[in-house]
Amino acid sequence: MRDEWFIRGKVPMTKSEVRAVSVSKLELTQDSVLYDIGAGTGSVSIEAALQIPRGQIFAVEQNREAVDLIRQNKEKFHADNVRILWGKAPEILEGLPVPSHVFLGGTGGKPEEIIAELLRRNPGVRLVANVIALESLARFLEAAKNLGLEPEVVSVQVARAEQAGEYHLMKGQNPVYIISMGGAGDRI
Amino acid sequence: MRDEWFIRGKVPMTKSEVRAVSVSKLELTQDSVLYDIGAGTGSVSIEAALQIPRGQIFAVEQNREAVDLIRQNKEKFHADNVRILWGKAPEILEGLPVPSHVFLGGTGGKPEEIIAELLRRNPGVRLVANVIALESLARFLEAAKNLGLEPEVVSVQVARAEQAGEYHLMKGQNPVYIISMGGAGDRI
Amino acid sequence: MRDEWFIRGKVPMTKSEVRAVSVSKLELTQDSVLYDIGAGTGSVSIEAALQIPRGQIFAVEQNREAVDLIRQNKEKFHADNVRILWGKAPEILEGLPVPSHVFLGGTGGKPEEIIAELLRRNPGVRLVANVIALESLARFLEAAKNLGLEPEVVSVQVARAEQAGEYHLMKGQNPVYIISMGGAGDRI
Amino acid sequence: MRDEWFIRGKVPMTKSEVRAVSVSKLELTQDSVLYDIGAGTGSVSIEAALQIPRGQIFAVEQNREAVDLIRQNKEKFHADNVRILWGKAPEILEGLPVPSHVFLGGTGGKPEEIIAELLRRNPGVRLVANVIALESLARFLEAAKNLGLEPEVVSVQVARAEQAGEYHLMKGQNPVYIISMGGAGDRI
Repeated sequence: MRDEWFIRGKVPMTKSEVRAVSVSKLELTQDSVLYDIGAGTGSVSIEAALQIPRGQIFAVEQNREAVDLIRQNKEKFHADNVRILWGKAPEILEGLPVPSHVFLGGTGGKPEEIIAELLRRNPGVRLVANVIALESLARFLEAAKNLGLEPEVVSVQVARAEQAGEYHLMKGQNPVYIISMGGAGDRI
Repeated sequence: MRDEWFIRGKVPMTKSEVRAVSVSKLELTQDSVLYDIGAGTGSVSIEAALQIPRGQIFAVEQNREAVDLIRQNKEKFHADNVRILWGKAPEILEGLPVPSHVFLGGTGGKPEEIIAELLRRNPGVRLVANVIALESLARFLEAAKNLGLEPEVVSVQVARAEQAGEYHLMKGQNPVYIISMGGAGDRI
Repeated sequence: MRDEWFIRGKVPMTKSEVRAVSVSKLELTQDSVLYDIGAGTGSVSIEAALQIPRGQIFAVEQNREAVDLIRQNKEKFHADNVRILWGKAPEILEGLPVPSHVFLGGTGGKPEEIIAELLRRNPGVRLVANVIALESLARFLEAAKNLGLEPEVVSVQVARAEQAGEYHLMKGQNPVYIISMGGAGDRI
Repeated sequence: MRDEWFIRGKVPMTKSEVRAVSVSKLELTQDSVLYDIGAGTGSVSIEAALQIPRGQIFAVEQNREAVDLIRQNKEKFHADNVRILWGKAPEILEGLPVPSHVFLGGTGGKPEEIIAELLRRNPGVRLVANVIALESLARFLEAAKNLGLEPEVVSVQVARAEQAGEYHLMKGQNPVYIISMGGAGDRI
């Protein structure tokens, strides 16, 4: 889905290409229960929701302005299977259905604690994270090691041509690390 | 979808991340009619087919060995909405339903001729191509200019961590140019 | 040499890493005669000049504001072996010593004409160009083919960590195509 | 300097473009004393040696086969200002002249210990490291933090065109993290 389709404001948004790869790495099925933790504008939630109309998506976000954007995007795309939660993980996750899949978009400081909690709920949960800070990358690797998960790490660096007269100039985007762990994918 | 899920042989295959971005750029809808021209192992056809079970996918491939692989992958993934055509575009496309979407994976020499033919059939067709040769990139840009289309060009460069003892070493993949043109996406 | 060492103004400047690779690809020797065509801020000229204090560097630039910057940078770095020429190639090159090396930093429209003229002066001249427009890349490849040169093309995509609190966030720079042709390098 | 100019064997070698950037980041001066720790084929030592013929370069390498390659390359390029040391840092560095610059090419496990020792000898030493493992990157960042240094981190991802008939196909190289710390560069 194109970035410009979403209502954005000033909240940073996962770019189209990285979002497509991230949702693909989630390996959703039609009945997945997805937590989108640090949902930002909700673009990952929406893209997932449209792919699995019978799935349940929980978009968790602390920032009030971002929560408003998710609401607007949910409405724009008629993503009725997205439920929006304003608050902080892991506390806010209490009482939700057990997740089959989790997307971690926030660069919050303590991934190990959240991942451990998610694994307690579902030892076979599929986790995908987007990371741009080198320190966060290190913490995810450390968390994976401590929790006995083997992470798949890819970095995705996209450049996009911008038109300038009759020329197309390549403009670099920021590289994103996409970390994937756990889940049932190996069983196919 | 992971690369290792597909039956591959020696036919080159679009890598997982580039495939996810490419299918995303197609902007398929549930009733799309997709031509996958130069289908290779059929991985793009299969991934698209599973996303739109009610859509029609036509996987076109000249290479006999590749056609066999597509057949095997179609069977493995129960992708009943993929029809395989052994032959050469544009001739082989005669008599097929009008395409709403086309993926051009082959680096065949003459994109302009094929794109012109596809536009004749459907002036609003959505086209996405993968290109790795600089000369092919130039020809696509030239074709787009001549045919009055504004191409979106992104290059996607993926590096993947390989485990070596307790280390994860980043290994670069080949950059791929993903060119997208036409279609209804701007109307959303 | 760091970007911030140079006096810059609003003229675009080749970034440090791409400049280092480009100067390296020139394969200068102590007595080289280098034309820097489309010299911009003069950063390539200066970096080359400091590496070969006995060489002769001719910085050619059309833009008046840029010429002033080159002058200031020449002074700052005591690069006495840089001569600045205000004007347009190939006309402005009349009467200069025969070049052993040429750097083409400008994205001017007609590389073939300039390269042909440079080859007339020295069939063994070493040429390195920086290109960011896809159309310019195509023209350089076409020029090389027509002139019987085998180009080496690399794309260099740099990301740089920016500090944000205790985090280092990777920020992508624009990818640059570095094209190298001709010269004596194969003889070593 | 081109990769194929060096005598290589099976020892991994820093690729041309990454080597050029790395040597540039060292910010050598004519009278520098450079330690090249984990020198491999010696390509960084040689490239530095030819740039500063009056400087002193100490190529430190544990691997016997690699030491032989350095010797051969030193001879081939008449790099008389390179001294080769067979052994392990930091022990082998005893008794050498105080370093002004250090290149760390090896991915040995404990950068902090070596960097601390180098800083003891020269608090203003300029350090540049090449890293390809994510865990090593994390350790360098940790070491820099503990030692009070502000690291500059860039990742360099190069793709190189390979000729295939009349086409040039872009082939990705492995991304390398280049970490630079300390030194006198800020004073210019």
